[in-house]
Amino acid sequence: MGMPLELNTMIVTKGREERIENNFFKLEKDEYRLYPMHIPLEVKNSISGEIRGIAEIYKLEWSDQKTLIYFELKSLESTN
Amino acid sequence: MGMPLELNTMIVTKGREERIENNFFKLEKDEYRLYPMHIPLEVKNSISGEIRGIAEIYKLEWSDQKTLIYFELKSLESTN
Amino acid sequence: MGMPLELNTMIVTKGREERIENNFFKLEKDEYRLYPMHIPLEVKNSISGEIRGIAEIYKLEWSDQKTLIYFELKSLESTN
Amino acid sequence: MGMPLELNTMIVTKGREERIENNFFKLEKDEYRLYPMHIPLEVKNSISGEIRGIAEIYKLEWSDQKTLIYFELKSLESTN
Repeated sequence: MGMPLELNTMIVTKGREERIENNFFKLEKDEYRLYPMHIPLEVKNSISGEIRGIAEIYKLEWSDQKTLIYFELKSLESTN
Repeated sequence: MGMPLELNTMIVTKGREERIENNFFKLEKDEYRLYPMHIPLEVKNSISGEIRGIAEIYKLEWSDQKTLIYFELKSLESTN
Repeated sequence: MGMPLELNTMIVTKGREERIENNFFKLEKDEYRLYPMHIPLEVKNSISGEIRGIAEIYKLEWSDQKTLIYFELKSLESTN
Repeated sequence: MGMPLELNTMIVTKGREERIENNFFKLEKDEYRLYPMHIPLEVKNSISGEIRGIAEIYKLEWSDQKTLIYFELKSLESTN
């Protein structure tokens, strides 16, 4: 009778983030995941991919075995 | 640069729960708190108070340094 | 790249606890589990079993995909 | 009746790490802290300092309101 959860230290979008407005995004992930709030985290498209930017999560929701995070992109990696 | 959180194993309402409908309630707590989801938890009015019932949390939200939990009351203690 | 863990709110021994001395025990569990420290927790032999007592964990170790908890039994349920 | 803990996503040594042997170190921190195990983490001397290297935690202990982590330094930043 425990609750499985996953401790995450970066935001892996797999291209499924939705822009809310400007630099604000939301992203739904399967299962319950624990992310640090209000702390700069690397944003990647895939686990082994390159860093696309740095973001901070300002809202997190758990329900229906899903995690919904809301984050603000604070900086973008230049890629050229 | 860590994120403070509090691990909670029971629901302490301090009389501030709001009924959504029937046996469904929501409760706002200060700070970010980690509760087990979908697991029977004791509900008390105060930490040292009596058990009022058993509930399961089905939704949890973190934002603005607050935790909002949604729970279903599964059983009530009879008190007489 | 997340770390799976399980949030536990009771101590389920499955008869594998080892007595250190007097009321002090240790118990090894598979995988990394998060238990609240220094908080009264129910002790059961199996998830669906009866409560055998109340204990508090005073030490927790994670290594090799295992969790080792050390707890003090604070009270025993009488069973008769 | 909750357990305060801090979610940490990097290793901040403040120069207090102890070498066990070769690239293996241990570090004691105040209070109970949750670190991801077996995941590459940045090592810094202070929160605002430069990255000194990348390490993975292979053992974590909680007791007496302290956290003891054991980590292997996987790579060093060159600084020149």
